Amino acid sequence: MTTVANHSELTPLRFLQRSVEVYPGKEAIVHGARSYNYAQFGVEVQQFAKALSARLNPGDKVAVLAPNIPEMLMAHYAVPLAGGVLVALNTRLSARELAYIMEHSEAKMLFADTELLATTATLRTEVPTLEAVIEITDTEFGGTRPDVVVDGTYADFIALGAGPDLPYAIADECAPIALNYTSGTTGKPKGVLYSHRGSYLNSLGETFHQGFDARTRYLWTLPMFHCNGWCTPWAVTAAGGTHLCLRAVREEPVWEAIDGLGVTHLCGAPTVCSIIADAPQAHALESSIKITTAGAPPSPAIIRKLQKLGIDVVHVYGLTEVYGPFTICEYQDSWDGLDDDARAERVSRQGVGMVQAESARIVDMDMNDVPADGVTMGEIVLRGNNVMIGYYKDDAATEAAFSGGWFHTGDLGVMHPDGYIQLKDRAKDIIISGGENISTIEVEQALASHPEVLDVAVIGVPDEKWGETPVAYVIRASGSTLDSKTLAAHARTQLAGFKVPKTIHFPQDLPRTSTGKVQKNVLRENV
Amino acid sequence: MTTVANHSELTPLRFLQRSVEVYPGKEAIVHGARSYNYAQFGVEVQQFAKALSARLNPGDKVAVLAPNIPEMLMAHYAVPLAGGVLVALNTRLSARELAYIMEHSEAKMLFADTELLATTATLRTEVPTLEAVIEITDTEFGGTRPDVVVDGTYADFIALGAGPDLPYAIADECAPIALNYTSGTTGKPKGVLYSHRGSYLNSLGETFHQGFDARTRYLWTLPMFHCNGWCTPWAVTAAGGTHLCLRAVREEPVWEAIDGLGVTHLCGAPTVCSIIADAPQAHALESSIKITTAGAPPSPAIIRKLQKLGIDVVHVYGLTEVYGPFTICEYQDSWDGLDDDARAERVSRQGVGMVQAESARIVDMDMNDVPADGVTMGEIVLRGNNVMIGYYKDDAATEAAFSGGWFHTGDLGVMHPDGYIQLKDRAKDIIISGGENISTIEVEQALASHPEVLDVAVIGVPDEKWGETPVAYVIRASGSTLDSKTLAAHARTQLAGFKVPKTIHFPQDLPRTSTGKVQKNVLRENV
Repeated sequence: MTTVANHSELTPLRFLQRSVEVYPGKEAIVHGARSYNYAQFGVEVQQFAKALSARLNPGDKVAVLAPNIPEMLMAHYAVPLAGGVLVALNTRLSARELAYIMEHSEAKMLFADTELLATTATLRTEVPTLEAVIEITDTEFGGTRPDVVVDGTYADFIALGAGPDLPYAIADECAPIALNYTSGTTGKPKGVLYSHRGSYLNSLGETFHQGFDARTRYLWTLPMFHCNGWCTPWAVTAAGGTHLCLRAVREEPVWEAIDGLGVTHLCGAPTVCSIIADAPQAHALESSIKITTAGAPPSPAIIRKLQKLGIDVVHVYGLTEVYGPFTICEYQDSWDGLDDDARAERVSRQGVGMVQAESARIVDMDMNDVPADGVTMGEIVLRGNNVMIGYYKDDAATEAAFSGGWFHTGDLGVMHPDGYIQLKDRAKDIIISGGENISTIEVEQALASHPEVLDVAVIGVPDEKWGETPVAYVIRASGSTLDSKTLAAHARTQLAGFKVPKTIHFPQDLPRTSTGKVQKNVLRENV
Repeated sequence: MTTVANHSELTPLRFLQRSVEVYPGKEAIVHGARSYNYAQFGVEVQQFAKALSARLNPGDKVAVLAPNIPEMLMAHYAVPLAGGVLVALNTRLSARELAYIMEHSEAKMLFADTELLATTATLRTEVPTLEAVIEITDTEFGGTRPDVVVDGTYADFIALGAGPDLPYAIADECAPIALNYTSGTTGKPKGVLYSHRGSYLNSLGETFHQGFDARTRYLWTLPMFHCNGWCTPWAVTAAGGTHLCLRAVREEPVWEAIDGLGVTHLCGAPTVCSIIADAPQAHALESSIKITTAGAPPSPAIIRKLQKLGIDVVHVYGLTEVYGPFTICEYQDSWDGLDDDARAERVSRQGVGMVQAESARIVDMDMNDVPADGVTMGEIVLRGNNVMIGYYKDDAATEAAFSGGWFHTGDLGVMHPDGYIQLKDRAKDIIISGGENISTIEVEQALASHPEVLDVAVIGVPDEKWGETPVAYVIRASGSTLDSKTLAAHARTQLAGFKVPKTIHFPQDLPRTSTGKVQKNVLRENV
């Protein structure tokens, strides 16, 4: 018999409620000169949520465009507490890309950091649902304010919050809590819906695998807009740990935090590992730090460098559609006995399902498991509570992604005899650069929009710093003398800077299959 | 949209599946000369479950009467894997008490350790539903086999398991996984139903609060029959840790395990703490151990003794109805600054809801929160996913227990200003002795069944070793010269030995209220 006495709907909101009650005086958030204890964290979230709830209907979307600052953390609780759905926006997107996402999500409000206001200037006129753009004036922002008109400030807005505290509870654990946009197989970003239940369980999984507890001091090097920071805004709070905010992931502030703030954990793309390992400030640490990294396997050289500093590296694999990490490369004691190269090869594998997830599979076209021989390629498919609700307003794409009862990652990999999966190729033509997804198709469309471009193919090539970087192969129209610089400038009017290829080749033709498809594998082999 | 791709029913069965896949060669169970790696653990559970599934209908009860041996761990997975519900029996119960539980639970099969066969001798004839009693012949049992006929051995039984492996999955996460009998407000034990969902979430909570990981080596000092060992059979397995089994909690084997097996964690009643702290073998440890204790607050003296040995003590509070621990006395850094007595007083509090649980409340008769002043008494009420499904075949008791949408513990306590609860009295007339519940009413009924007893009242009195111990006040029939020894012997024919009062007083009368109820508080004050 299920009753209110023996059943509560799972929600990460409970984690904040508990830490406010248990650790009111404990440091919850540190951001430069600002800091909040858990009581203050709770008070501000309630203020924010009450102000929001006066303007929202249940399920309304609220967008936030900000670096990893306290207000972004607050939004992870305040928006769902007010019955809304959080849309955390990638801070590197162009105005055009933002407009698409704001329109598609039908966001009612946008909270934007001063530094990022420039890209929001036209949103109020372009996005019909958008009722207000509210500026977050971060005390740690030292730059000049762009000349953009807004509807108010965050401080004034939350001051409107009134009435009794809202309950840290929800009516349906399967209801959405967040909407995250990702580059998919088509050029347009897709909206990935997360549920309260999935976020709750993934948070507990992150807490277990990263070993968060009340002594944890988590440095925010992973963007919170990226899969809601792998649910870490909720997980670190669940553990009663301390969030150490950061406006920008650069050598200096990162090492200042490591040396001055007692960092115990951080996450990020391999670039974050490189920034830390290669910094001039790098030095051996007294107490060890754990870095959890994804996007591409960390290179053996980087792992060795970090270990020498006293930093342990944990390698995980996932996608936006699975709340961030889904598999983890669990270290096996027996690997101690391997030589460096063999051990590095093991550690670079994507691994096994996390404790709150199901087992990953590698399947052929008929959904049969491929042999676990480490050689036979198949698609990585995943399922369970850490798979998204679906793509927002795109039932066809959701159905296709869930075909056969499993989420199709589009990634190709092999299954090793020990049950560890290893990623071999990305079927979806996604480039992961600095931890961000770049759809090759989207880049191709931007380049092809130049009148002198006849045909184009974009591939990802390995890059020491970014993991991968896009490279374009462009067939010019007859007689055209279009050069890289001009074409890149054209692309930059449509794309975020990090998506624009740094290298553009102009070959005579592109290798094609008999059916006319560009053979990207041939391009990749010739890099 | 909830589909098979993005939703799995929560079950602790997943934890074994994962650890078998991820850590096949890792030590999962150690028991004297026997040990199992995770692959072997999985194989035996599957064998056991397949043999069971040939005999069970979904939801059938399977009882196990055994010390903390590997077969008891296997049963925690094999019975639910076969679609059954596990009834783990208290090894200290009398034949008569066992018969009641077996009949009430309608158990179809009983697996019993050789040493405990004597109390099962008449069950086959007394319990109509019971189809077979199967003997578990533990390699570590050194005693003489009682002369009791059984239907087969565990080894022969599981050898019958055939066919493909059963899926580590269930159709409904709210379905029962276990049935645990507890002494309640009436004399008869009540059957407490646990769900897969509750067990799963409580396991993750235990994993977080105890800090289990793949390096954990958990010593089984807490009986697995007690709230399914607080879900630890599932939690340690989830973490990929190692179960260290124990037939009996005595100084020698416990210290042998600590010294020889690398114990990192253990749990138990305060008696377990005393056994460890007061043992002649006790010595300071190189690496620290965490003991989680419940039933009564650990005494400051014991805490100090254990800390000197390098053992950390965590104090938790719960009941059978809430899967074992529900609150934990989370240590606050600010307590470091208190003097010893003040700190001991803080640590002795029952604390706050665990991470997977809701907040505990202390309420008056109208379900209003009492003032958080540390003085005003009220009833401790709890709710959420870690509250039982209900009492088996006792809807009236379930309804009463869940009145007002909260589970009524029957325990009286106060709420401190910091949100920590503290237990003050047990309204349900329960004595907790050596971690086991004793219903005073049940003991009173047993004593009153002697023809020369006119009236009786039983109370719990503090006991250095057992926490509490029962003491009886008996009014003899006119002219009777009945003595303690004779009356205790009479009681022992109906009760487990630990429930029989060691001290029996024969006063002239009992203190009573105006309405005739015995004033047990007066008896307690005069002890």
